[in-house]
Amino acid sequence: MSGSTFGNLFSITTWGESHGAGVGVVIDGCPAGLALNEKAIQTYLNRRKPGQSKFTTSRKEADQVEILSGVFEGHTTGTPISLLVRNENQRSKDYSSIQNLYRPGHADYTFDKKYGIRDYRGGGRSSARETIGRVAAGAVASAILDSLGITLTTFTKAIGPVVIPEEQYHFHHITENALYMPNNTYATEASAYLEGLIKTLDSSGGMVECRVAHMPVGIGETVFDKLDASLAQAVMSIGAVKAVEIGDGTAVAQAIGSQNNDTFYMENDEVAKKTNHSGGILGGMSDGSELILRASFKPTPSIAQSQRTITDSGEETVINIHGRHDPIVVPRAVVVVESMVAITLVDLLFANMRCRMDKIKSFYMEEKDV
Amino acid sequence: MSGSTFGNLFSITTWGESHGAGVGVVIDGCPAGLALNEKAIQTYLNRRKPGQSKFTTSRKEADQVEILSGVFEGHTTGTPISLLVRNENQRSKDYSSIQNLYRPGHADYTFDKKYGIRDYRGGGRSSARETIGRVAAGAVASAILDSLGITLTTFTKAIGPVVIPEEQYHFHHITENALYMPNNTYATEASAYLEGLIKTLDSSGGMVECRVAHMPVGIGETVFDKLDASLAQAVMSIGAVKAVEIGDGTAVAQAIGSQNNDTFYMENDEVAKKTNHSGGILGGMSDGSELILRASFKPTPSIAQSQRTITDSGEETVINIHGRHDPIVVPRAVVVVESMVAITLVDLLFANMRCRMDKIKSFYMEEKDV
Amino acid sequence: MSGSTFGNLFSITTWGESHGAGVGVVIDGCPAGLALNEKAIQTYLNRRKPGQSKFTTSRKEADQVEILSGVFEGHTTGTPISLLVRNENQRSKDYSSIQNLYRPGHADYTFDKKYGIRDYRGGGRSSARETIGRVAAGAVASAILDSLGITLTTFTKAIGPVVIPEEQYHFHHITENALYMPNNTYATEASAYLEGLIKTLDSSGGMVECRVAHMPVGIGETVFDKLDASLAQAVMSIGAVKAVEIGDGTAVAQAIGSQNNDTFYMENDEVAKKTNHSGGILGGMSDGSELILRASFKPTPSIAQSQRTITDSGEETVINIHGRHDPIVVPRAVVVVESMVAITLVDLLFANMRCRMDKIKSFYMEEKDV
Amino acid sequence: MSGSTFGNLFSITTWGESHGAGVGVVIDGCPAGLALNEKAIQTYLNRRKPGQSKFTTSRKEADQVEILSGVFEGHTTGTPISLLVRNENQRSKDYSSIQNLYRPGHADYTFDKKYGIRDYRGGGRSSARETIGRVAAGAVASAILDSLGITLTTFTKAIGPVVIPEEQYHFHHITENALYMPNNTYATEASAYLEGLIKTLDSSGGMVECRVAHMPVGIGETVFDKLDASLAQAVMSIGAVKAVEIGDGTAVAQAIGSQNNDTFYMENDEVAKKTNHSGGILGGMSDGSELILRASFKPTPSIAQSQRTITDSGEETVINIHGRHDPIVVPRAVVVVESMVAITLVDLLFANMRCRMDKIKSFYMEEKDV
Repeated sequence: MSGSTFGNLFSITTWGESHGAGVGVVIDGCPAGLALNEKAIQTYLNRRKPGQSKFTTSRKEADQVEILSGVFEGHTTGTPISLLVRNENQRSKDYSSIQNLYRPGHADYTFDKKYGIRDYRGGGRSSARETIGRVAAGAVASAILDSLGITLTTFTKAIGPVVIPEEQYHFHHITENALYMPNNTYATEASAYLEGLIKTLDSSGGMVECRVAHMPVGIGETVFDKLDASLAQAVMSIGAVKAVEIGDGTAVAQAIGSQNNDTFYMENDEVAKKTNHSGGILGGMSDGSELILRASFKPTPSIAQSQRTITDSGEETVINIHGRHDPIVVPRAVVVVESMVAITLVDLLFANMRCRMDKIKSFYMEEKDV
Repeated sequence: MSGSTFGNLFSITTWGESHGAGVGVVIDGCPAGLALNEKAIQTYLNRRKPGQSKFTTSRKEADQVEILSGVFEGHTTGTPISLLVRNENQRSKDYSSIQNLYRPGHADYTFDKKYGIRDYRGGGRSSARETIGRVAAGAVASAILDSLGITLTTFTKAIGPVVIPEEQYHFHHITENALYMPNNTYATEASAYLEGLIKTLDSSGGMVECRVAHMPVGIGETVFDKLDASLAQAVMSIGAVKAVEIGDGTAVAQAIGSQNNDTFYMENDEVAKKTNHSGGILGGMSDGSELILRASFKPTPSIAQSQRTITDSGEETVINIHGRHDPIVVPRAVVVVESMVAITLVDLLFANMRCRMDKIKSFYMEEKDV
Repeated sequence: MSGSTFGNLFSITTWGESHGAGVGVVIDGCPAGLALNEKAIQTYLNRRKPGQSKFTTSRKEADQVEILSGVFEGHTTGTPISLLVRNENQRSKDYSSIQNLYRPGHADYTFDKKYGIRDYRGGGRSSARETIGRVAAGAVASAILDSLGITLTTFTKAIGPVVIPEEQYHFHHITENALYMPNNTYATEASAYLEGLIKTLDSSGGMVECRVAHMPVGIGETVFDKLDASLAQAVMSIGAVKAVEIGDGTAVAQAIGSQNNDTFYMENDEVAKKTNHSGGILGGMSDGSELILRASFKPTPSIAQSQRTITDSGEETVINIHGRHDPIVVPRAVVVVESMVAITLVDLLFANMRCRMDKIKSFYMEEKDV
Repeated sequence: MSGSTFGNLFSITTWGESHGAGVGVVIDGCPAGLALNEKAIQTYLNRRKPGQSKFTTSRKEADQVEILSGVFEGHTTGTPISLLVRNENQRSKDYSSIQNLYRPGHADYTFDKKYGIRDYRGGGRSSARETIGRVAAGAVASAILDSLGITLTTFTKAIGPVVIPEEQYHFHHITENALYMPNNTYATEASAYLEGLIKTLDSSGGMVECRVAHMPVGIGETVFDKLDASLAQAVMSIGAVKAVEIGDGTAVAQAIGSQNNDTFYMENDEVAKKTNHSGGILGGMSDGSELILRASFKPTPSIAQSQRTITDSGEETVINIHGRHDPIVVPRAVVVVESMVAITLVDLLFANMRCRMDKIKSFYMEEKDV
């Protein structure tokens, strides 16, 4: 309710502003006995770090994570894991010229009206640096999923008009191009498109897709905490996301039932589906097929063009945003989407453990035997 | 967490199966002093009742709501409001032929795997009757919004290929056609499309749009309980929804920043925006312009065509679904979307009351003066 | 947060006023596959029914429970269980004479100030009838505990000055006297005491004790959701409770460490404790020995003596409370305490299932094998 | 649910172990515009610091707090406030001799059984250092209460057999003796008692009382989130607390109604009560009179005497606890109790803001006027 905590059994509480002392996250409810060290978290964080290509800001951010609690001799202890990343290389002066202006497409105006005060330096809490806490927690969630044999593949599906159709996906390409696209040819095309926008001082939207394999069947709570509903909140809560789709997504509005229904059949004595329009979710629960989710990101609102806007005292003016900004948020947001999906899955996997009396009994009876 | 409760300060807990004794909702956190009677709730419920046109099931359901608690002498008392709708006219026999089959596109399989037991009659808990509780609560939430001057307009934007462009909206048409479309001509076209599908024993998807006017600025909590994130969960939790969009939605992925940024300006001494690509939300908070949300619904999975599927013991077979089913869920889902949006807004309006120290002080100091 | 919901994974939402249409509860998160019928719940409810002895009000209340959802063919389905008890035999007229008066020791004044409106009939929401929902849910929780081999024994430890020392407990006496005391001799003494108070138009306080055997070790979450902290909220939330004690309770304030520390030793290859000052809880987690909790109830505030008080318009006056009231709340409250303890234990037993990575892995891996 | 978060609208998440990198807290939901700096928090922290008298451990802990986020130019911004205290002066070696032993009266055994792993150094998460996060958050909550004119007075009521009766309270004495007792003569007596225990290598229990003046009427949510129920959880969650009492507490079990009922009367046109047996709470809501709460603390379990116990492999043995331990936890726990009370009050004050429709309307209408 207080806004900075997500999840119930595996819950994360993020904190921190762009130009404050640092950013971080407290993970509560991580089970004991998970192997964890700073390196594993750092690997995740590095995927969202700026300065990796010409399409990400040239700011150098070390973003070194420190584990402050919850890990003892290389394993989690079941107590809260507090992760800290100190802010460095802040150029607060860059923002002094815009402290009284409302940047178009940003949260400056809404923050000011809600709280009557705002940390204008780099967007403060609404900065993309807020996602560092999410990604650090996502690394932990992913480690849990990994030990359960559940795997996530996340990538850039589209940049502006460059959209990769599903049949052109080559997942091993994802790490071969700076845009995390599953097709190097499309990535080249997208690069050219972005270079054009850089020249015109503009920015581009894009789309991220996340696919999850080997989900147990039945994950997700009925009604409001459905798997898809929980994922929708998780992913829509990422700044700049304006749409969340599951499976066929918006295309279902134009579909007909005889085609949209996925036919069940048996394959090697296991339940299978001929198609996967549902994106792996039926009735809000995982159906055993691949979970497919897409998030549409708006173009970076910080552009170098002069823009008309207003001051916080209600005068119309022109704003020029300096500083270092990505022409597109998507490549760096890939790991953010993956993190939010992972965190959501872990939370619902845990909630699912108490839904059958027979399993609860064998859980506790077994314990008594030992 | 338990799945059937939504909201924190204004929270609803729904219960009930399609063919059990009834369905209902407990609303907790409704403020005292709101005028409320059964008629106001019934008006809302009637909007989702079947039997209103040839495109909704011919089942007659009285769906009369009874207020069991929380209202005294015509006003809410601040205590939980329990609302009950008894089930009637259940033809459980219709379902006995399919009790061991998994209907494609339904939650039969996932329910069975998750819980090891399922009430197969009419989909049980995953029936559309589950939404009665949401709509009854939505009526109460709407009454609260109404008294704050906030208004919701919800309608069918698209049915299959028939999509009404924004510039063709005539909101007074919404109540003039059985499909709740804001354009009677498009509604006639959509009717013809649906009639064709009825003949081929098929069903159609569709899209619902909800617009909210006169929102105060700054509603929505930062980070995870953003206004858009909360709405995404609320609306994605409705059965058959596969995508939720805010403002320009998926279109932002192809947009460029210079066009997507909404320019602030002053109009009659008030902050205004030249465009509304953001759909009324910036940084997860309402920005004072119209809130725009769209939900894409998949086609009704229950179709009269024979379909291939499997039994619960893993044998392939053919299923024939009898009973009475809508060829499209959208017209009746319009009020469900509106209800979930209303409930979410009320919850976040209440949460917002404690975000500024000066306002808290004047709230409590004023009280002491009285 | 909205106040009428308790628990997270096994959560209950109660509703209803003394003189409204009825009272009830929605239980969300009850696992599927639990045998459940109305009779089992009724047995629990009957333990709190009035009219069972001269020390309970002579009102006849049928209090017949109806299961409205969540049970199919004699077993829970994992979906919300809605339980309804219709109010009957309400004599609202009894209360018309006091509708503008604030009864001493009651919530009339605080309700009025908080909500600006109150259902004055029988205390409305603050009536002891509110506990019907708790007890109905407690019956379900107890059934779950029972199937895990965990047993609860709850009884009246003290009535006014009549306090039964631990070494005088005879648990089979509990059902042999109308006061639910574990010693018939003390019960006779307490009866005489109560009869004296009835003559002087007065009422008595009392103490309830609950003991839980066969708890697994380690139940309770660290820090804020400790087992004792959760129990304290659960039990203090019962009307008229003014103190909650665990183990030695208030006596620890005068104890010394060398005596208060329970010595660990081995008994039949199992960890045991020489004493149980801790009341079965160490560091907020169950320690495997008997869980011991006590609740102190204030005397029934409704007494037949004339009392001085004020009107809701601030005038001093005299109040005479008619109607039918127990001279003590404790005997009927025994099952309420037991219910709240049971609900809390189930919730924490479920939460505990996700605290070790090895157990989570075997839970899900086993599933995959099946 | 995850155990380390408390509160809903004003919520705190604590983290950290005794001998890890540090301890801290994230406060979410603190309103914007509150003046806050590190000094104000430090003042609170200093009240729980060891080394202040011969009755607190001689460990020197700097316990300097750092504000990592949520404060900008001396005021809170409405975003999460992250507070960090680095651990220093840890003598982990002190604990190596007991890493395989279960200390009597400690959480070693329960931690080990629950999680299968434990940070044995200094009790890890169950160390009293965990309360640093609570107290840091309590400082912020107190600042909020202070600005609303609500004042807390917390003190040591009893140490072993030395109990100060209410009529002997002199609140200005509290800061005049090392035991935070409201009577210097009793404090001298208690000191002598503690010195005796130090000589016999033993420890003492004690009792803390907290009194809150100037509470608005009606704070507390009905049923489960009652003011007293919430306080009971908050205070019972503090390590070593075994009983929580409101007003007359356990004494009510022996009281009679005619004496226990507090008579309402009018004083200077304001509602008042002749007595305050209720401890300022009626029906779970503040009644405008002084709120009175007591917590009973068990004796420090770490005593220097040799004690019998078992190893983690189930062998009986003798344990000798070295290190530096207080002979009583109470004096340092005074500020912990005060902090938990303050945090609870703030949370419920915020929840209360949405309980009347007329107040909500004037809150938002006023906003529109501005």
